[in-house]
Amino acid sequence: MKISVIKIGGNVIDYPEKLDEFLKIFAKFPGHKILVHGGGIMASRFGESLGVMPEMVDGRRITDKDTLDVVTMVYAGLINKNIVAKLQALQVNAIGMTGADGNIIRSNKRSIKEIDYGFVGDIQEINVKLIDHLLAGELLPVVSAITHDGKGQLLNTNADSIASALATSLAVEHQVNLYFCFNKSGVLIDEKNENSIIPLINQDIYKELKREKVIHSGMIPKLDNAFEALQKGVNYVWIGKAENLQLAAKGKLSGTIIEQHRYDLY
Amino acid sequence: MKISVIKIGGNVIDYPEKLDEFLKIFAKFPGHKILVHGGGIMASRFGESLGVMPEMVDGRRITDKDTLDVVTMVYAGLINKNIVAKLQALQVNAIGMTGADGNIIRSNKRSIKEIDYGFVGDIQEINVKLIDHLLAGELLPVVSAITHDGKGQLLNTNADSIASALATSLAVEHQVNLYFCFNKSGVLIDEKNENSIIPLINQDIYKELKREKVIHSGMIPKLDNAFEALQKGVNYVWIGKAENLQLAAKGKLSGTIIEQHRYDLY
Repeated sequence: MKISVIKIGGNVIDYPEKLDEFLKIFAKFPGHKILVHGGGIMASRFGESLGVMPEMVDGRRITDKDTLDVVTMVYAGLINKNIVAKLQALQVNAIGMTGADGNIIRSNKRSIKEIDYGFVGDIQEINVKLIDHLLAGELLPVVSAITHDGKGQLLNTNADSIASALATSLAVEHQVNLYFCFNKSGVLIDEKNENSIIPLINQDIYKELKREKVIHSGMIPKLDNAFEALQKGVNYVWIGKAENLQLAAKGKLSGTIIEQHRYDLY
Repeated sequence: MKISVIKIGGNVIDYPEKLDEFLKIFAKFPGHKILVHGGGIMASRFGESLGVMPEMVDGRRITDKDTLDVVTMVYAGLINKNIVAKLQALQVNAIGMTGADGNIIRSNKRSIKEIDYGFVGDIQEINVKLIDHLLAGELLPVVSAITHDGKGQLLNTNADSIASALATSLAVEHQVNLYFCFNKSGVLIDEKNENSIIPLINQDIYKELKREKVIHSGMIPKLDNAFEALQKGVNYVWIGKAENLQLAAKGKLSGTIIEQHRYDLY
């Protein structure tokens, strides 16, 4: 079957109106779909109220026991359940999950090298059979950025990594597209011009754009991840703004499409 | 099929060792099963840390917007996901849910009479078909005491009522037993003597015990609820301590069994 894995982040979740707008688009998005979300800013705010201060290294949260409790409460409780209730109101049979639920995502606690990230998980295995069973029951999984190690420990896990792992694992048997909603309209030629979207990037174009330094710094790991997903069988990866996802669903130009070789979408 | 609906409360959840002990028993409990939990004390404690003070009227929590956020975080996030992760470690494929997930429990916001309970739900409908689909997939639902109104609003809902509603709705097509774990060994003849358990209560015995004032005050609504569940088709209701559930599973005397007419369990 055809499955869309869609990832949203703080730039949607932290703004109730944007979230509502996105969920309406998402509800109408055709075919089977899985929503993946984090919720960093809200977790930091609640943590601070509880006296648990956020500690970040290179944009990654250090997750001690108290921080893990906070992210579990905020991601898997507050954010996840409110998204599910809102989707239900839109006649979408959403089911909120962490990686522990149905054992859908098993991780290993990241080993300590230079930095001890604490209770952070690196994904090991996706339970495709269980996800297939949920999708067959017309359920729409809403997955928060928490996984487990199979030994009773919850683990804080990067939402982009969860979306990629779900997409690549499901791609073995299904036709999967992967959508990353972020704060820009796509991969831009000029970072300051939201209209300078590069509509398509394939391996050849990517090499060229890197050589000319149009694509640099933070976009490189994002695109490397996208190409990794393609190599593992994902059909295409879309990067753009959540509010433009509706156009993407209709096959209209609305962000950047990343695909392995050919450009035959439109 | 045969389904056991088991409800635990704060007297298990608030003590990590007791919870671990209970989950081991629960994991081995035979047949299909559903776990229902609240988590009042932990919610009050976290609420206080956030400056949200618990307000109770007649033992029922008044749920304003902030309190709803706290119970959603603590019940559906912290408690639910830790239980699920621990059950996964015991090789049980648990899936944590609120009533919003899969639309399994739809409620109405309680109408304001003398008291405005706030965001509190009275159960309207159970999605039996969806629960059947989960059980058919060898999943074990772990349901926290949050429901939704189908219009996007989460609602705080009594865990005993959730357990009863699940049991009676499933009893239409299945053979369902309902287990309430509480802080006493069963219905006692002498409240101060944990060995004075009444092993069986049926309608005739109940009338007699009420007439003789052996059963009074707080036990009357509990037993009325149990008989209501039996009238709606539940096979039997068990009341006792969580740690004695193992004996109950083996058909051994371990608490109070409430059944409609006959006593043919053992």
